[in-house]
Amino acid sequence: MTPRILEIRKGVLDKNDRLAADLRARFGQAGLFALNLVSSPGTGKTALLERALGRMIERKLRVAALVGDLATENDARRLARSGAPVKQIVTGGICHLEARMVEAHLSGWDLNGLEFLFIENVGNLVCPSDYDLGEDLRVVLLSVTEGEDKPLKYPALFQSADSAIITKVDLAEAVEFDRAATHQNLQSVHPGIRILETSAKTGQGLDDWLDFLVEQRRRNVEG
Amino acid sequence: MTPRILEIRKGVLDKNDRLAADLRARFGQAGLFALNLVSSPGTGKTALLERALGRMIERKLRVAALVGDLATENDARRLARSGAPVKQIVTGGICHLEARMVEAHLSGWDLNGLEFLFIENVGNLVCPSDYDLGEDLRVVLLSVTEGEDKPLKYPALFQSADSAIITKVDLAEAVEFDRAATHQNLQSVHPGIRILETSAKTGQGLDDWLDFLVEQRRRNVEG
Repeated sequence: MTPRILEIRKGVLDKNDRLAADLRARFGQAGLFALNLVSSPGTGKTALLERALGRMIERKLRVAALVGDLATENDARRLARSGAPVKQIVTGGICHLEARMVEAHLSGWDLNGLEFLFIENVGNLVCPSDYDLGEDLRVVLLSVTEGEDKPLKYPALFQSADSAIITKVDLAEAVEFDRAATHQNLQSVHPGIRILETSAKTGQGLDDWLDFLVEQRRRNVEG
Repeated sequence: MTPRILEIRKGVLDKNDRLAADLRARFGQAGLFALNLVSSPGTGKTALLERALGRMIERKLRVAALVGDLATENDARRLARSGAPVKQIVTGGICHLEARMVEAHLSGWDLNGLEFLFIENVGNLVCPSDYDLGEDLRVVLLSVTEGEDKPLKYPALFQSADSAIITKVDLAEAVEFDRAATHQNLQSVHPGIRILETSAKTGQGLDDWLDFLVEQRRRNVEG
């Protein structure tokens, strides 16, 4: 990139950081725990979220979701079936969400009435890494079908995440998934990262994940 | 994006287009057929290319490859085992290849001695769509594990491609792949697009694809 583009880009990121800090403060005051889900396209963010929203509604947790997409509103329709409030953010071709997009889509929602907000980013292992959305937890998803080398090939996003979820583990055997190599590659780019394994199909790992989120929120609210 | 960024972006793209046109002319004069492979991370571009290079070397076709990656040189090492000349383009965090990167990595190669050049783009369903690399054929890959909706969600890249390959079809049953929906979604965003199904694991579809490429090159050279 040219120095001029780098300079403008820095300005955009600084502005995003300021807005994200404002959002984080608003979420904190409302006792709302916000998550930013990032991954490659097809890793299964929407499928996991679909299961998670359904289970959280059963557990009487007050949860909402924002889902980012370049062009369609399909995901919001799919997720709204859970009964949770859901809005789609259509980026119009932009390959990541930005804090201003999140902020613009919160209108009409009473944040004090919510405990959890999931923000599903655009499917992309590069663009979302620099954009803070005001989240409390950034979760990177990686499916067993994608190949063990992805953390090494897209290090910035994996380094920017607070925890990792390996998805579609019901397919692990069919794709000859190398669990040890995947964990090792994740740990090598992000030492100490917490890794969970899930299957949206069988529900494996879902309750563990939700228990973890409930505990994280409790610490935030009490802390 | 702000008007100022859009303006600079247009300048970058115009410059890229001019350089890509120069590359296309050089490739044409050398009788070299160039392909730009684009897909999400983990779709299996490198695995398919690995099989294709091996088979082309067996067929006495003169082939080389450039492989783009954000950070590592692993893919080039993996592909070089085929015996074909291979170079890695490390983009340093940029989420797509550009014509200038291709041009810079051709030095030292006698293009007249080559018939095919594969350019494996960075794994990304958004960024590569606007960047012409001087290729004769842009091929978008989509794996059966990624979900049938990807063409609808990332239309620009699928519209920019000349043909599509559905990869990992050996896993179709395990992931309950909906073939009809995938073909329909591909055709809806890009009417008439040629679709091929392959498996790098079993070799299914590989010879059909190579026959197609040989025929496309013959037409170019004779045309």
